[in-house]
Amino acid sequence: MAAIQHGTVIDHIPTDKTYQVASILGLFSLQTPVTIGFNYPSKKVGCKGIIKVSDKFFTDDEISRLSVIVPNVVLSIIRDYEVVEKKTVVTPDELRGIVKCNNPKCITNNEPMDTLFHVVNKNLRILKCHYCDKEQEMENVNLV
Amino acid sequence: MAAIQHGTVIDHIPTDKTYQVASILGLFSLQTPVTIGFNYPSKKVGCKGIIKVSDKFFTDDEISRLSVIVPNVVLSIIRDYEVVEKKTVVTPDELRGIVKCNNPKCITNNEPMDTLFHVVNKNLRILKCHYCDKEQEMENVNLV
Repeated sequence: MAAIQHGTVIDHIPTDKTYQVASILGLFSLQTPVTIGFNYPSKKVGCKGIIKVSDKFFTDDEISRLSVIVPNVVLSIIRDYEVVEKKTVVTPDELRGIVKCNNPKCITNNEPMDTLFHVVNKNLRILKCHYCDKEQEMENVNLV
Repeated sequence: MAAIQHGTVIDHIPTDKTYQVASILGLFSLQTPVTIGFNYPSKKVGCKGIIKVSDKFFTDDEISRLSVIVPNVVLSIIRDYEVVEKKTVVTPDELRGIVKCNNPKCITNNEPMDTLFHVVNKNLRILKCHYCDKEQEMENVNLV
């Protein structure tokens, strides 16, 4: 996969999470060059995904969305073919419009509205629905 | 994007069709290395997508599914880093389980079953539902 001049590289993605990472970052709606690779051989993780996005620098808010699926991933910020910064994913205090509530009676599953979760325990990665108080683990969420 | 040793390359995909091509070929379920690029600058088509799949050679049946979305695309078959064959997409006589019927009363929209369409005119690209006889243009289909 070719180097990019400016933009963002996300390497060492667990291969089966690559599509979700692309999806949650909205890559399929971007106008700049995007390369998505998966099932690449990797010494570190067996099999990995890589994403390279030219001319795009994600906001901290966009990056925090990744905490749901790949909390340990690192983003490399590239300028003039050099890595000028590494960004880690920080779990946010709230997740809005990203995760589905797993309570079928929750209002968010019955009205056209955004979900909202509070991260009540960042170490154990527990979310609590703002509307119905149902808790769920971040490992097992369904994305909106 | 790096060259592949063995496999299939699909170049000059209209960029906004790249995701659908990946999806219809089932690339997200493969176990071999896959690279998907889109929004790449192209002299021919303004902006293009490229897909490279290592160690995978699609059957004629799989390739014919592409007729719904990219009838003019060419697949390059790679062995030992060389293009050994070019395959064009041939519109099949029937499409099974690929396209949705746009008649909401059609049995295929109301029972858990595969759709089936006959290609009644390959030049005008007209499909006819096997079950309810409703016709639709291949340009405007919704995929299952």
